[in-house]
This record gives sequence, structure tokens and C-alpha cells, in this order.
Amino acid sequence: MSTKYVYMFSEGNGTMRELLGGKGANLAEMTNLGMPVPQGFIITTEACTRYYEDNETIAPEIEAEIFEYLKKLEKITGKIFGDPENPLLVSVRSGSRASMPGMMDTILNLGLNDEVVEGIAKLTDNPRFAYDSYRRFIQMFSDVVMEVPKSSFEQFIDKVKADKGVTEDLELDADDMKRLVGMFKAYFKEMKGFDFPTEPKDQLFEAVKAVFRSWNNQRAIAYRRMNDIPSSWGTAVNIQAMVYGNMGVTSGTGVAFTRNPSTGENKLYGEFLMNAQGEDVVAGVRTPNTIDQLKEIMPDVYDQFVDIAQKLENHYRDMQDMEFTIENGKLYMLQTRNGKRTVHAALKIAVDLVNEKMCTREEAILKVEPKQLDTLLHPQFDTVALKKAKPIAKGLPASPGAACGKVCFSAEAAIVAAKTGNKVILTRLETSPEDIEGMAASEGILTVRGGMTSHAAVVARGMGTCCVAGCGEIMMHEAAGYFMIGDIKISEGDYISLDGSTGNIYLGQIPTVDASVSGDFGTFMSWADEIRTLNVRANADTPRDAEHAVKLGAEGIGLCRTEHMFFDADRIPAVRQMIMAKSEEKRRAALDKLLPMQREDFEGIFKAMGGRPVTIRLLDPPLHEFLPQEDDDIRSLAAEMDISYEELRETVEALHEFNPMLGHRGVRLAVTYPEIAEMQARAIIEAAINVKKETGLEIVPEIMIPLAGEKKELKYVKDFVTATADKVIAESDVELEYLVGTMIELPRAALTADDLAKEAEFFSFGTNDLTQMTFGFSRDDSAKFLESYYIKKIFETDPFARIDQTGVGRLVEMACTLGRQTRPDIKLGICGEHGGDPASVEFCHNVGLDYVSCSPFRVPIARLAAAQARVREIMEICRIHNIPRIPL
Amino acid sequence: MSTKYVYMFSEGNGTMRELLGGKGANLAEMTNLGMPVPQGFIITTEACTRYYEDNETIAPEIEAEIFEYLKKLEKITGKIFGDPENPLLVSVRSGSRASMPGMMDTILNLGLNDEVVEGIAKLTDNPRFAYDSYRRFIQMFSDVVMEVPKSSFEQFIDKVKADKGVTEDLELDADDMKRLVGMFKAYFKEMKGFDFPTEPKDQLFEAVKAVFRSWNNQRAIAYRRMNDIPSSWGTAVNIQAMVYGNMGVTSGTGVAFTRNPSTGENKLYGEFLMNAQGEDVVAGVRTPNTIDQLKEIMPDVYDQFVDIAQKLENHYRDMQDMEFTIENGKLYMLQTRNGKRTVHAALKIAVDLVNEKMCTREEAILKVEPKQLDTLLHPQFDTVALKKAKPIAKGLPASPGAACGKVCFSAEAAIVAAKTGNKVILTRLETSPEDIEGMAASEGILTVRGGMTSHAAVVARGMGTCCVAGCGEIMMHEAAGYFMIGDIKISEGDYISLDGSTGNIYLGQIPTVDASVSGDFGTFMSWADEIRTLNVRANADTPRDAEHAVKLGAEGIGLCRTEHMFFDADRIPAVRQMIMAKSEEKRRAALDKLLPMQREDFEGIFKAMGGRPVTIRLLDPPLHEFLPQEDDDIRSLAAEMDISYEELRETVEALHEFNPMLGHRGVRLAVTYPEIAEMQARAIIEAAINVKKETGLEIVPEIMIPLAGEKKELKYVKDFVTATADKVIAESDVELEYLVGTMIELPRAALTADDLAKEAEFFSFGTNDLTQMTFGFSRDDSAKFLESYYIKKIFETDPFARIDQTGVGRLVEMACTLGRQTRPDIKLGICGEHGGDPASVEFCHNVGLDYVSCSPFRVPIARLAAAQARVREIMEICRIHNIPRIPL
Repeated sequence: MSTKYVYMFSEGNGTMRELLGGKGANLAEMTNLGMPVPQGFIITTEACTRYYEDNETIAPEIEAEIFEYLKKLEKITGKIFGDPENPLLVSVRSGSRASMPGMMDTILNLGLNDEVVEGIAKLTDNPRFAYDSYRRFIQMFSDVVMEVPKSSFEQFIDKVKADKGVTEDLELDADDMKRLVGMFKAYFKEMKGFDFPTEPKDQLFEAVKAVFRSWNNQRAIAYRRMNDIPSSWGTAVNIQAMVYGNMGVTSGTGVAFTRNPSTGENKLYGEFLMNAQGEDVVAGVRTPNTIDQLKEIMPDVYDQFVDIAQKLENHYRDMQDMEFTIENGKLYMLQTRNGKRTVHAALKIAVDLVNEKMCTREEAILKVEPKQLDTLLHPQFDTVALKKAKPIAKGLPASPGAACGKVCFSAEAAIVAAKTGNKVILTRLETSPEDIEGMAASEGILTVRGGMTSHAAVVARGMGTCCVAGCGEIMMHEAAGYFMIGDIKISEGDYISLDGSTGNIYLGQIPTVDASVSGDFGTFMSWADEIRTLNVRANADTPRDAEHAVKLGAEGIGLCRTEHMFFDADRIPAVRQMIMAKSEEKRRAALDKLLPMQREDFEGIFKAMGGRPVTIRLLDPPLHEFLPQEDDDIRSLAAEMDISYEELRETVEALHEFNPMLGHRGVRLAVTYPEIAEMQARAIIEAAINVKKETGLEIVPEIMIPLAGEKKELKYVKDFVTATADKVIAESDVELEYLVGTMIELPRAALTADDLAKEAEFFSFGTNDLTQMTFGFSRDDSAKFLESYYIKKIFETDPFARIDQTGVGRLVEMACTLGRQTRPDIKLGICGEHGGDPASVEFCHNVGLDYVSCSPFRVPIARLAAAQARVREIMEICRIHNIPRIPL
Repeated sequence: MSTKYVYMFSEGNGTMRELLGGKGANLAEMTNLGMPVPQGFIITTEACTRYYEDNETIAPEIEAEIFEYLKKLEKITGKIFGDPENPLLVSVRSGSRASMPGMMDTILNLGLNDEVVEGIAKLTDNPRFAYDSYRRFIQMFSDVVMEVPKSSFEQFIDKVKADKGVTEDLELDADDMKRLVGMFKAYFKEMKGFDFPTEPKDQLFEAVKAVFRSWNNQRAIAYRRMNDIPSSWGTAVNIQAMVYGNMGVTSGTGVAFTRNPSTGENKLYGEFLMNAQGEDVVAGVRTPNTIDQLKEIMPDVYDQFVDIAQKLENHYRDMQDMEFTIENGKLYMLQTRNGKRTVHAALKIAVDLVNEKMCTREEAILKVEPKQLDTLLHPQFDTVALKKAKPIAKGLPASPGAACGKVCFSAEAAIVAAKTGNKVILTRLETSPEDIEGMAASEGILTVRGGMTSHAAVVARGMGTCCVAGCGEIMMHEAAGYFMIGDIKISEGDYISLDGSTGNIYLGQIPTVDASVSGDFGTFMSWADEIRTLNVRANADTPRDAEHAVKLGAEGIGLCRTEHMFFDADRIPAVRQMIMAKSEEKRRAALDKLLPMQREDFEGIFKAMGGRPVTIRLLDPPLHEFLPQEDDDIRSLAAEMDISYEELRETVEALHEFNPMLGHRGVRLAVTYPEIAEMQARAIIEAAINVKKETGLEIVPEIMIPLAGEKKELKYVKDFVTATADKVIAESDVELEYLVGTMIELPRAALTADDLAKEAEFFSFGTNDLTQMTFGFSRDDSAKFLESYYIKKIFETDPFARIDQTGVGRLVEMACTLGRQTRPDIKLGICGEHGGDPASVEFCHNVGLDYVSCSPFRVPIARLAAAQARVREIMEICRIHNIPRIPL
């Protein structure tokens, strides 16, 4: 049987979103529910896919099928497409599986030409309506099909109004409209070089192709990338018989929500305009009426609409966003869909629907987009003030929230400015570990280079600080104390504002408001926690971060980066002494200075975590990160350390690496200098013993050796760790358990995970590095060329933000399987940036990890994503067993 | 049944090398053949493994077993260990599976003490012999068991000789020897703080442990690493009843080869000394007799020995290296093994053995070590001159051969010096692509940084130029025109000599000789070619390299790096214009200049290859490699290009990458600038058409897109390549086939090879990069820390030199399987450095690749290694079917 590419509304239903798109499936469903829907047909998403396979042409058999269905529609409506005596006009709308702004808009009144318009005028006895519809059609068709912007026609409307001395559209009469049609057509010909198409079938065909084309316009691609929608889905096209809200005073059109989309209040919310077509409602030319006012104007229609709205909400068990038209006093439903809403509304609606017994907690869990929670946890710009502001540039939205402050070009300046009570935006080419304190002192961070997982972005997210990264439009003139964005000069000390959720940069100060968390948030998250089976930990390096993480619901620390402690101003001298040490003895002397500091950190963290598991990673970064790179800095540090410039310079050069990411770091450091691992193991175990003694908490530290790729190297370092740990425990008067594990961040680690599991009691997937190695992409460099990859549709998502299931994911699965083969009870977690990405969290749930770990601010997101993954799993089980929905 | 750790010689046989070691297995075999072998027993390699498992102790049950076998030996010999009346003395020797210098040497006469020596003196009526044996034993035992160097005893021998006024050892009598024993024992006590062990069982035990220990001494580890011997093998210990060559004038000892190990001549070759023990023959104190002279001295013994030698050679079907002792006129065989030989001898012997019908061609193929062929193809130092020279430093033997010349510090200086007739050694911190011409002009290359696969090493091997890389002992003072090695100052213009096969660096000029290839080489290689099933191609970038490769037996080009052509002085300006171009139009203009040059190169290569397949890789390196990095160079280039310094500086900075290895290179360049791929595709296809027209050769170019990790990126670039190629072909008047494929160099490429194979008609494994990504090691940086890995026995081989079968190999196998799933006839090859490594070639044969590709000079090695892999495969099939050997 050949593929069916076209469906009448009556042939489909609400479950056919994939094939018919969301809009089409819902029109079919409403038809099935007996609601007043103008009839029509749907060209499927498969036809769109086929269109691209056929090099952007519509195959003859699909063309034939479309016209066959057009005939059916003519039969149902009793009207004929293109017949001036009894003309059928249609609307053409795109409709993909997920709602997608950026795609082709609606074309109304398609099928009009000079003859048909006269027919309409006669039939309706309303020439003004007929010509108004015609001029609208020419405008819309030109805009979305022929790339002649809609706005370029406005000049003619202005001219006609001026000639006539009026100001309102409604003051124009039939002749004026007719004059406009003439002007529009002439303008069209001038712009395109050919006449406006008069054959209705050509119009229909061009419109269908325009919908298909719009699936791949830049805006749609960008939207899909941001929202993880695959380009393979395609869009459907909805062809629907026209009804008219502009037929006179008993006609109108409107949109409404079953609940308030801003607040979630359970009350019909909407707007309408009498004697208007859909576009007028949103255009803002006339002030619309609120939906309540319909009750007064047309009480029957209002009652009917309220009834339909309630039915639809009950039917879909979610807040609905509906479009309707009233033609000569008769109500028509043009669309319904689950309505978009603010996060506050989303939480309230989810909780209310459960309380109203409209849906189960499991279903409610799916009604909030995890990423939306982000805005709950960070300050935001005051919305009124923001509307007035105009961004001067845009970078990557690297860490959410809003910030405004004075531009500082160095970490030192930022610290000084913050101490004197200033709010600071640290602005740098890129940040490095030396900038940590300056970053912590800043309200926001702005960098010229680097991607979503650059140092600045990762650290800022960890701190919950707003960050806009990789804004290439900035030309730094740091030495001269300013930077340029286009022609705008911003000097050190000037105020700028950053929106870390959009990447926008603004001149001057935009006031921010603290986010408020409603009581629904707590209720909702408690349901999520009950449902999910995947644990959520946080990446936290300090007691402060740890406390914060616990408040946000973290069940442990999945990654404590010990090197972050090394950058503290009072510690880095000892770290540098260690690096400069020419013998193991001197190195040990320097490490002895670090021991009490590290122990104290760990004590603080163990206390803050109150017995929850804590995974501590041994020193990871290449040592050169602890030394200055610039000549002046080397000179001053040498003086400070009381060594010669040459000696320090030589060490810096000796530590130089061509590809530090592939260099002397992770477990490799401990292989060369086992005494570092010994000191850290001692600090961890002593801290655990001390806290256990002091608080009575059962503490089981998890010591993590990073970057292992070979069992023997893991064993070599582990032997030092366990020897030290066992000795410290034996010398104490308490018993203490501890685990030693490794990170899986190299492809070879995943490939030999069975072997590594002989030594490792747990695996933590470091999917940042694993992604770098698997793709051969440096996260610091790839942003530059990945842009072409998105534009050229090679990649649809950033593999550093969303785990690449095909490649990296396969290694993760392989490592899980191999690891469990050797050690069935091996603990498995993930601590890369992906731990806070909802799609990646779902992947982690599905491969059976024990936990995900992410920056504290992302913990609620991960908790919700984990619950959603579990719900989807249950739904899949229900589906397999033919259970229609998760039981109430 | 418990493991058996000890075997009498009569319990073993020649096939038990794994368990008994080579020496033990051969002693057992000779015993079985009825040859006169002093009896003894063997402690197995498994006992050695057990020794390490038990923390370097000998388990009680093994101890018991050893003494049980000592009893058996006493029964066979009728002598008692430690009994002064009728003492059994033994030799203790190590014996691993493969012959391994660096392990513990022989200890003779073990079992002697003050009482036993007197018994021997009485029994033999030869006190001088008895005390000579005793003092030798003390020396040897102290040296190899107690770490008191043998040479430190020589002072006492000198003193006794001086006291007596004689110069020869033989002039010392029994009392002198007795005096020496006393002096030796006193010295031992002084050095060690305890008495020399007098209990024979203690002596035996300490000796056995010393053998086991020696398995893991630094020299042994280094040797294993160089020769790919796994540390898990362990060594056996051979305990053998002593026979004495030093018992008087009818006693003697010697070594002999069944054929000449230098020339391969089929004539018994050896040396012996009468009244001596083994060590005297090699010590060079007395001049030994040639084996022929034995015929005159003891004709019966000679005849018996010749007969045994012939039997052994026939039995082992290979040239034998034998040790023998004559005790009071009776011949004893102490050892036989396949003899080491020069490559010339190896080739002659292999060919002769086949001609003599001693072995099959298949067996002969295994008798030449592939790596040995290397010396045939490069100039070598004159051996006499080399013996006198002393290396001043040692680097990595990065590219074989010998070179001497004047030190030059820059490529420019090297070119100038070479043009004026000087031989040059280019000496640099590290080389970069800009140095290519200077490298080509040099006799040898010396670098301070970088490993076996650094730029210098890879390029030098490709050129066949001698290279010593990564000599960290060098302190460069380039600006001042000299470098230091320790206290030695070498100025620009001074002569130095490099041995690229050992890594040795010499001061001054050592004369070199061109290698001569005997006729046997051709015969032997033709057999290898008949036997092997794996094809061998070469990596070649120029017509000259291509011609050379064909001469060395290459069957195609597996990797033609187009970027090497870009570095030519007359081309790089256009390349730089392309990089600086601000628009596609300008970029195309620059590319248009490159087109005819590239086409001409390809024409030359196609002609040189005479229709053999040629795989051409599209532009691969990051663009910054084509621009200078130093400020001065940027300034002068800017002037040259007539652009501002700032503009060029800005481009250089924009192209800067933190990890260029993981940056904007390979297919990613072509995604950003498809016009580069278009130009290259055009150049390739036009060249193929031109050469086909001119010569009539059937040319099927293989166009290779590097570094793909995702099907869509491959397809994106492939579409430009095929569109261009098809257009060029259509516009011509000839038909031309071509292939488009990709490299598998990213883990993700291997993991998604089924997908990639939908677009790729061939895969070429770029195992350099694949190793980098799989291990997370940069080849430029890892040499520094990998040294610790070898010392700590974490790694036994350099994964960049020998393919890591566990990790990287698994990805290769996976990609082969997945690739064939999609495209059963997909062409599979390897073009990484591993293509010239024999062990890796065997791996490639086993996973079923179609070809390996390596630098031209390694082609003969790869051809032989491929043949050997095939022979081993046949042998394994024979083994499974119980066929004892490959039929003649």
C-alpha cells in the first residue's frame, strides 16, 4: 500500500501528533468531540520529509492526493475552490509536532482573485468585507510565500488614509479597499517582476511549499537547537475552510486560556475583537475586549465557549490555549493546545490539577519544563524596566540570572571594587583559575572567548553567578581601560547589565528583582522526589557551596574539586612551592603546609553534608595552571617567592604543553608525584575521623582518582591512597569505611571498564572530558567552529550541553555493562556538566546510573528531570501493557 | 592437583619454552635427543610469577620442591650437594622465554665453601683448579646476588700478580688462588657487613631469588619495552651439575655457531679456550682458538661436536648458537639456541635454508626480524670508527640511519649551508611545519623536545632522514649561537654525528657508509610478497617520495598529505592569502592560484605510482600552522603581504587554540570553507584525467576526508567533493571512477562507523590521532610523563609506536565490524605511524584490513611483518588441525 499523505480532520485524532502535527491532531480531536470546527484536511509531516528527500519538490502523487482532498472539502462545505459563484476560501497553517515559533505563519483567505472577490462581495452583500479580505490575503501571501515583507505594504494604507483624511482602518470603505488591492498588486509586480498569482490552485501549492520551506529557515533551526527538537520531524500543513470574524458586527475573533498563563489562576482568560480577523487581535491596533465582555455582547456564544473550554481542559487534562472565530453569531473553534505558561503558573496549575483530581501526580510532573525552574532560583531583571532596554550585544547565555554592575577588567580590580561596596561585572577575554576570587566577588561575568563549557561558564554556573560568555562582538582595549561594541565605548567603571538567561548585554543599570518561590514549588518538588529513583548530588567545592546544595535538595556531593581550594590566596604560595620543589623531600615539606588547610576544608564539607555521601576528586589540573604565564607576573612572583626569574621562567616553560587537555594532569600527576595523593588521602581521612568523632555522623568518604585509562595506573595510585588511609585509620581510635573509585572520562576507560572495575569501587562519568575525547573537540576551542555546524544542520545540539547518546552515550553504556560484569554492585554516577541537563538526566536514568551530580543551582532541575524520566518509563510500561494512562 | 614448579631436564622438551624458558627447554630437548648434557632441573617461569605474587618470597612448597629435585640430581650424578667427600657443584642460570640481555648472568661452581673446596682439591688432585673455581664463584656470586661488583675484586688479583711479579692469571698457582679467596672473603665482609654465605643451600636459594629479581631490574624492563616482551612472562631458573673446562689441559670450553652469524656463510664458526671456564672465552684476557683448531687438538671431540651441531641445526631447522665444555676429554653441551645474527646473515641463512630444503619459505620468513631490515636501507656509521667514539648524550631513536654534519639552528640556515655544499644537522627545540624545507636539506635532525611521534620524528621517518628526538640533556642558547650538553659547548657550525637507530649523539665527524643490499634481500622479500595477504602502501606526499616508495615495494599510497605541498616557499603566500581572505570571493581567488600547483603535484604522483591506488587526504592541519607565531615574524610577513601588522596579528590571535589537536582542523575546515575542498577535489580529478589521457593508465583516485566523527559532517563535505568531481568529469571527454572515504581517527568515528560507512567508500585508520583521543594523550606532550609510566611498569610499550590492542585496537575492530555491516566491500586500511610497526601490522592482518600504509623506508618492514602475520596464522590453523609443521 502506498503511503497516505493527506488526512481529513475527521480521519485523524489527538494521538496522531507525529504524523499530523500538534495543530492538526487537535483539530481532528475537536472534530471527533463534536465541536464546531471549520472542516479541512492535513498534509502530513511525512510529506514534508518527502519534500526534502525529493530536493524540495512535491511529488506528483502527493499533488494528486492534495487535490483529491480539496475535492472532498468542497463536497463537505458545498463550496468550490476558485468558483466566483460559490467560492471556497481556505486558511493554510503550519503545524509541527511541537509548537515552534519561527515557522511560517498563517495565510488566510487563500483562493481569492479578482473574480472570486467579486463573487464574495455579491454573496455576502458586503464588498468592504470582500476587498478587505483580499488585501489581507495579498499582504500575507506576499510576505510568507514570496518574501515581500508585509510591512512594506503599510505605506499604501497610510497613503489611502491620508488621501481620505482619516486615521483608522475601519474608516476605510469598500472602494478604498479596492484601491488598496490595486496598489498592492502593482507593488507586488514591481518587487517580484511578475503578476500576483491569480490561480487559486497555484496559490495553494505555493503556500504548501512555503510551509515546508519554513521548516528549515534560520529562526526555526535556531529554535529547534535551543529546544532539542530534531530536524527529522518535519511539519504538517493544515488546510481549513475559512470562517470570517470580519463579516460585520456579529462576527469576531479571539484567543483564550482556560487558566491564567501568568499566574495559573483557575479562571478563563482571554481577549477578542469584533469584526476582525485573527491577526488584528495580536497586532495591537485596536484594544481587544477581555473574554468576560463577550458574556455581555453575545451571552449564548459565551456560554457555548465556556462549555467547550472546560470540555477541552478536562479532555486534555491540562490548561488549554484556544483560538476561536464568530461568524455571523456562530462560534467556530480554530485551534486548541496545551498553553504556554510562566514557571509560576506551571507550578500552580500542576499542583491544582492534582488537587482537582484532574490528573495524577505523575502526569502533573510532566507539566513543568525542568529548565523553567532555573528562573525561580536566580535574580531577574525587572520586567517593566527590561522592556524599555535594548541590548547592545549578545553572547552565550552561559549561567542564568540577571546582573548589573561596574565593568572591571581584572580579578584584582573586581575584588577591590566589591570590597568598597560596588557591584561588579568582571569582563575578560577569558577567565582562568587565577580569577576565581574575582569571579566570586562579581555580580556577573562577561567573556569575549569561550563556549558554554568554558572555564567562566562552568565556574559561574557552579557559583550561581550570572555569566554571558563568548561575546565575540567585544573588542577589548584592556590596557587603555575600555572595550568597544560596535561604535559604543564602554570604559572600566561604566555600568552594564547582563542577562545570563538570554545572553543579552545592556548599557547602564537595569534594576533586578529577587526571584520569589511560591509554596507550590515545595509541594511539586516533593512529588518529584517521591517519584524519581535516580539520586541527585551536587558538584561543590566549599562548605558554603555544600550547604547551598543541601538546601536545594542535593543528596550528596558527586564532585568536590580539591584544586579549587588550591587557588585560595593563602594556599597558592604553598602549592607553588610544591611545584618548584626540586626533590621529593622539598615537595613533601610544601605539601605538609597544605595538609591542615585541606583537612579543614573537608571537615567543613563533611559537616555541611551531615553524613550524606561526598566524592572527593584528587588533584586534577595540569600544574601550569597554578603558575603565572605572563612575563611580568612571573617576575613579580619570582621576587615574592625569593627565587630567580630564570628559575621560575624555566619551570613555567617546562610545564608548557601544546595540548594541556591531553597532557600531564589527573591520575598522571599522582603517578609522577604520589606524595600529592598521599597528602590528599590523609587530609580526607583525618577530616572524616575528626567529624565522626565530633558529631557522631557516619561518614564514608569516596576518594576519586581522575582520568585513569588503564588499570595499572589506577592501581599504582590507589595503592598509595589505601596505604595512607589504612595507616591513618589504624592510628586513630575509630573505625572508618571509605571507597576508592575513578572517573570515566577517557574513551579507553570506558573500553576497559571491566578491568578498571577490579580496582574501582565506583565510577563517576566525567562526560565533559569524555565528550572532548570522543569527538576530538576542545571545549575551549570548539565554539568557534561549531557555529557552522549548527547553521549547516550537522549538529542540532551542543554535545557539551546535551549528552551525545550515539557516541559518548554508547561509551557510557559500555562502561556500565563492563563495570557491572566485574563488580555487580559498583556505584555509578555522572559529574559532568550534563548532570544538570534534563535530556541527559533522562539518559542517565535509562542506563541505570545511581546518581547525577550537577552544580547546586541545577539540583532542582535535575530532580524534576529525574522524576520525569521515571514517569516516562512508567508510561512506556503502561503502553506495553495497553494501560491507557497512569491510574489516578 | 597442585602446580608443578620444578622439572628435571628429562621431564621437559623443546616445545615447553613458555614454562621452562628457552634455555631450559633446549637443555631438555638435547637431553631427549641423547646428547651429552650435564643433568639438572628447571624452576619454571610460573614460580617466578608466583614469587612476585607472594611479595618477592619463595613459597614453602616451591622451596620443598626445589630440594626434592636437588635430591634427584644428587641421585643421577652420584654426588651430594655440600658434601666435601663427594660434592655436587651446580651452575645457576636465568632463562626466559625469549633471550633477554640485562637479566642475571650465570653463576658457576655454586656449592663451594671452605670445606667443599678442599674435597674438590683432593678428588681432582688439582688444588689450583679447586681454588680457582672457588675464587670465581665468590666473584660471580657477590656480583650478581649481593651487588658487590665483580670488577671491584680485580684489584686483589692485580695485587697478587704484582706481589709475585707475574702478569698472567695462568701464572698464579694454587696458593695464590687460596690467598685470593681469603682476600675476596674479607673484602666481601667489609662491603656487606656479614660473612660470605658458606651454606650451599643458602647459596642456591639466594641465587634463585637473584634470578627472579633480575627479571625486574631496570635494564631488563627497558629491554622488554624495546622488544615488546610482556612483563607477565617471568623467567625460569636452570640448575645444572657443573662440568669443568678448567680441569687441566684436556679440558676446555667454547661457543660456536653452526653458520657464520655475521655473513651467514654455511660453515661452523666458533672459538674455544683450553683449561678455562666459560667467562674466560668472552673476557678477552686470553686469545681464544678458532673452532677449526679443535680438530687438531682433539679430533674425536671435534668430530663429535660437528656431528651434534649438525644434528641440532637439522633438528631446529635454524642456525644454532651453542656452548660446550670439555672435561678431561669428554664433551658436554651446555646450551643451544637459535643464534642471533646480522641482517645480512639472517637473509642469507633464510634463503640458504630454503634452498637446502631444511625449511619451507613460510618458516624462513619468520627467521628475519622485520625491524632488522631498517639497517639495510639507511647509511650506517663505519663500525670501526664507531667503536672508538663515545656518545655525549642520548635522545630517542626517532628515525634510523647515521648522519654527521654541521649544527644549524634554523631551517633557513640549514638551507643556506646545504646549498653551499655543507652537510647539516638541523638542531631545534622542536620542529614545526615551517621547517620542512630545512629538514629536507639536512642530513640529520636533532630536537630537544618531542617524542617518537613528534613532528620531527614523523617527518624525518617519512623523508628517510636520520633523527634523534627529545634529547632533554641539551640546553639551548640559540640566540648566543650554541647549546650545552653537560659541560660540553657545541656552537653553530660545529660538527656532530647522530645515530638515529640508537639515539646516540657524538661530537665531531664519524664517517658513514652506505648500506649494501645483498641479492638475498630480493629473493627473501619476493617470498614475503608471495605469502602475505595484507597489502602494503606508503605515506608519500611528493612524486619523489612516491617513486621511492614504489622502489621499496609499495603497492599504492595510503596517505598523501596535501598540506605538505602547501608549505613550499612558492605556495605558502597563496595559502596565507586564503587564510587572510575576508570573503569567500577573495578566498576563492587565492585558491585559484593554488589549483594549478596542486594539480601538477597530483599529476606527478599519479605518474610515479603508475596506476597503483593513491589516497589523497584533504587539508588537515589547523590554519594557524601556516602563519608565523612570533611577533617579529608576524611583522615581516605583514610587510611582505602588504597588510597591517595589527590585521595579521589579529588573525593569528583569532586562530589561536588552547588545544589545537582538538580544534579547528580536518573535516571541520572544510565544513567552514567548503571551497577549499572543492579546489582540492578539482585538482585531484583534473590531474587524474590529464594523466589518464597522457598515459592511458587507469587511475581511480581515493579522496579522503579527515577527522570525521559524524555522518552528517562527512556528507556535507562529500557533497561538495562529488559535485565538483562529477562536474569536472562531465566536462571532460574521459570516464573516470573515484572513491570518497574518511579517516577513522576519533573514538566517535569508530563508535558510529556503521553510520559513516553509509557515506564513506573506504576507511583509513588514523591511529596516531585515535591513540591520542582514546588515551587522552597528546603525542607532543606525553613523552614527559610517560617515562614514569615505563619506570613504574604501568606501560610496557609506547602506545604511539605499537598499537594498544586493548583500547585503541578494540575501537579498530568495532569500526571494521560496523563498517562492513553497512558496506560489506568497504576498503579498510591504516595510515598511522603504526603501519610500520611489525606487531601492529600483525594486528592489522588479524582484524582483516586490506592494507597498511607507512613511510617509504618502512615499506619492506611492513611487507615482511605482513608475511609473518600470515605465516603465524597458517601455523595456528595447522596447530588446530594437529599438523606439526607447515608442509615442505
